Amino acid sequence: MVEVFESIHKVRSYECDLYGHVNNAVYLHYLEFARMEVLEHKGITLDGLKESGFLIVIQRIEIEYKFPAVALDRLRIITTMDKVLNTSGVFHQQIWRIEDEKEIADAYVTWVVVDLTGRPVRMPRVLKDAFGI
Amino acid sequence: MVEVFESIHKVRSYECDLYGHVNNAVYLHYLEFARMEVLEHKGITLDGLKESGFLIVIQRIEIEYKFPAVALDRLRIITTMDKVLNTSGVFHQQIWRIEDEKEIADAYVTWVVVDLTGRPVRMPRVLKDAFGI
Amino acid sequence: MVEVFESIHKVRSYECDLYGHVNNAVYLHYLEFARMEVLEHKGITLDGLKESGFLIVIQRIEIEYKFPAVALDRLRIITTMDKVLNTSGVFHQQIWRIEDEKEIADAYVTWVVVDLTGRPVRMPRVLKDAFGI
Amino acid sequence: MVEVFESIHKVRSYECDLYGHVNNAVYLHYLEFARMEVLEHKGITLDGLKESGFLIVIQRIEIEYKFPAVALDRLRIITTMDKVLNTSGVFHQQIWRIEDEKEIADAYVTWVVVDLTGRPVRMPRVLKDAFGI
Repeated sequence: MVEVFESIHKVRSYECDLYGHVNNAVYLHYLEFARMEVLEHKGITLDGLKESGFLIVIQRIEIEYKFPAVALDRLRIITTMDKVLNTSGVFHQQIWRIEDEKEIADAYVTWVVVDLTGRPVRMPRVLKDAFGI
Repeated sequence: MVEVFESIHKVRSYECDLYGHVNNAVYLHYLEFARMEVLEHKGITLDGLKESGFLIVIQRIEIEYKFPAVALDRLRIITTMDKVLNTSGVFHQQIWRIEDEKEIADAYVTWVVVDLTGRPVRMPRVLKDAFGI
Repeated sequence: MVEVFESIHKVRSYECDLYGHVNNAVYLHYLEFARMEVLEHKGITLDGLKESGFLIVIQRIEIEYKFPAVALDRLRIITTMDKVLNTSGVFHQQIWRIEDEKEIADAYVTWVVVDLTGRPVRMPRVLKDAFGI
Repeated sequence: MVEVFESIHKVRSYECDLYGHVNNAVYLHYLEFARMEVLEHKGITLDGLKESGFLIVIQRIEIEYKFPAVALDRLRIITTMDKVLNTSGVFHQQIWRIEDEKEIADAYVTWVVVDLTGRPVRMPRVLKDAFGI
């Protein structure tokens, strides 16, 4: 039973480069947007976590660019929790073009929970509960 | 004999998020900036390539975030050509904080040469010459 | 009878700076997004205009920042055509926080139509028709 | 005796849109970069001000886009303090292309000092001293 989260984004003109393609860094914004929607859905905010002494930081991203998105494309971003360990986790995120189900990008995003000094810590209960661990 | 390219960037306030850290997507901008400096050094421009019918597109990025950079940090971005194949290549790129040689990020960037319709093509001579293949 | 266009945007975490506020440049992205929605609604694309030999370029922006938006705020961007002249026009754009109708920003954006060499030209028919001039 | 500050920036590929021009929002990043260089030169950091209970927020920007910059253009950003009042000030900022002294943009940026609740306050001594008021 894997929870699957879905976010929708329509490509903006200012996200495109001189090829007319979405710039490759912008896809990481899309992925962040989708992860924040997951957290929001779970009732978690970065601000709230920070007040409790926790930061979520990204440790590693592997992204494969399958096909370039262009302005006005409607995209579906699918996020699933791939793995959760003691202090870290991995999200699997895929981006699809809605119109024709073309795959745009496929990514694995490893995150880690740290305290305010940046040291990895055991995952706080609120995150464990959120992801059913 | 591996050519090593070096680019310098000082972190801007608008590149930082509410943690005060450089946003993880912004590091891909730093890597793109450094790769463009390599091309420029080699006398190659994206515009010129496009006029000859070639686009360089990014196929895959693996990036490990080692330590967060903050506003005003001076960064050194080291770019080397890790591999060059018939239609594609891999850059190895590392970001270091100059002040104390702290490693900030480590990335492998796979690129491919395509024609104006997006189909992979054999690497044009100008790129082969540039990278001594 | 002034046509009023409305666009909706929910603030993303990566649009916020170390104060937690939307960065002041990002508001211009919101305004561009809303103007593109107006053009799209009118059946006009920048690509299509370019193929006909026309570019729309921004000549001047006056923006007043009334109140800072933060992550997850839902914003309403209201766009009206304030003035249309022979080669240029002015959009009035306002940004409101939906939750409490707080005014976030108020802007006047002057644009001009140029040919591919950057010279101002009389407004093409397709734009005149779109804006009922 | 007006102090004149100068910042240098070379346009990055990822700052350009599908026209090949620097996106109009990106110029506000250039202006912010230059203002931060002024503050840094004066020994002032946003973080330090925040710890003393002060935020500098932008209240209004008027920017005229004179000529589009493109990738690899080297730009000179000139910043002068146009006016300083009790709780606010105005920077005049101009962007020039170094190669041929072409004017790219001209802007007036009004800022205000607020406390951590967002209320305007009298300018702190450190800022008064910095700008010789």
